[in-house]
Amino acid sequence: MPGGEGLGEIRGLLIVLSGPSGVGKGTILERASQRLPNLCHSISATTRPPRPTEEEGRNYFFRSPEQFEQMRQSGEFLEWARYLDYCYGTPRARVLERLREGRDVTLEIDVQGGKQVCAQFPDAVLIFVLPPSEEALRDRLLARNTESEEALDRRLRAHREECKHLADYDYAIINDRLEDAVELFCCIVRAEKARVRRLVRNE
Amino acid sequence: MPGGEGLGEIRGLLIVLSGPSGVGKGTILERASQRLPNLCHSISATTRPPRPTEEEGRNYFFRSPEQFEQMRQSGEFLEWARYLDYCYGTPRARVLERLREGRDVTLEIDVQGGKQVCAQFPDAVLIFVLPPSEEALRDRLLARNTESEEALDRRLRAHREECKHLADYDYAIINDRLEDAVELFCCIVRAEKARVRRLVRNE
Repeated sequence: MPGGEGLGEIRGLLIVLSGPSGVGKGTILERASQRLPNLCHSISATTRPPRPTEEEGRNYFFRSPEQFEQMRQSGEFLEWARYLDYCYGTPRARVLERLREGRDVTLEIDVQGGKQVCAQFPDAVLIFVLPPSEEALRDRLLARNTESEEALDRRLRAHREECKHLADYDYAIINDRLEDAVELFCCIVRAEKARVRRLVRNE
Repeated sequence: MPGGEGLGEIRGLLIVLSGPSGVGKGTILERASQRLPNLCHSISATTRPPRPTEEEGRNYFFRSPEQFEQMRQSGEFLEWARYLDYCYGTPRARVLERLREGRDVTLEIDVQGGKQVCAQFPDAVLIFVLPPSEEALRDRLLARNTESEEALDRRLRAHREECKHLADYDYAIINDRLEDAVELFCCIVRAEKARVRRLVRNE
């Protein structure tokens, strides 16, 4: 597409990771990055207030609802979604830049966001992380100890809703033993990079 | 398909491995089997005479042209092909049995065979093994030291022809360092087993 308004030459892999809060997506990505140095994680913008351990620009870009809305209206988001009480969005420019550099970019987003990404990047790899059981997920959320019982129940209901979209995803990782989940994630990335249709296109 | 004449319940993965002779397909499969105990290799029938190190029933079922033709006519082959001077075929019954048991079955076959398998098993995983260069392949064939210069040139020409079918395959493995090739093969198998469409179907 010479001189066009397209996506430019995308050489990296765009990887979407979805799944309920507390299932271990962040930890899987952190560990996988240690093994796959080409991987980089996209930081989302959110209207959710930071948790005690979270840092601006490392976990999220924390924005006011007004700031977020302004970003959304000016088309700065690759995808965005309202999830429970807050909004989350992926800043588009940085992701595209990294993909053009040949980096593999991970997005930790919900199923609504996954659908938006898939529509724009049909070659994106969609991975859903599942807990071994709903009880296991509840235990992990309780251990995080940042929410009321009511908020926790809402998260579990949201999870059940999200699971209905599993069929839109390419791969499922059941996070039972963390090391196995990390290993499987790395395998998926390596395998996807050996796909003939990607290699032929990048020649 | 209750009581049908279909394939029965296929629970294992059917994996096709193609690529030029001498590229290291057999060694990759042997090493991968040590890591993936669920993998089993289908032994082909062939009219080619055994090489000094080859054994009946371990490397191939060695058959006369007449025996092979009889097997072919009675529909015993899942796929078969003539490659250079000889015929090669995959006995169907044993492969199906293993897949139904939930084993992952590998077929080391050429591109003509790969096409036949793909038509019957759209879910088969097709992997093409490539040498890092044609020179590297030539060196490996020379090191094997079982053929005349002329036979070697025919193999290289056949390889160039086969490469035209690369786009029909799902994955390409460049066998530069053997350990990396084995690792990538294992990753592809693990990733394919985590595909949502396989998991959902097997529920």
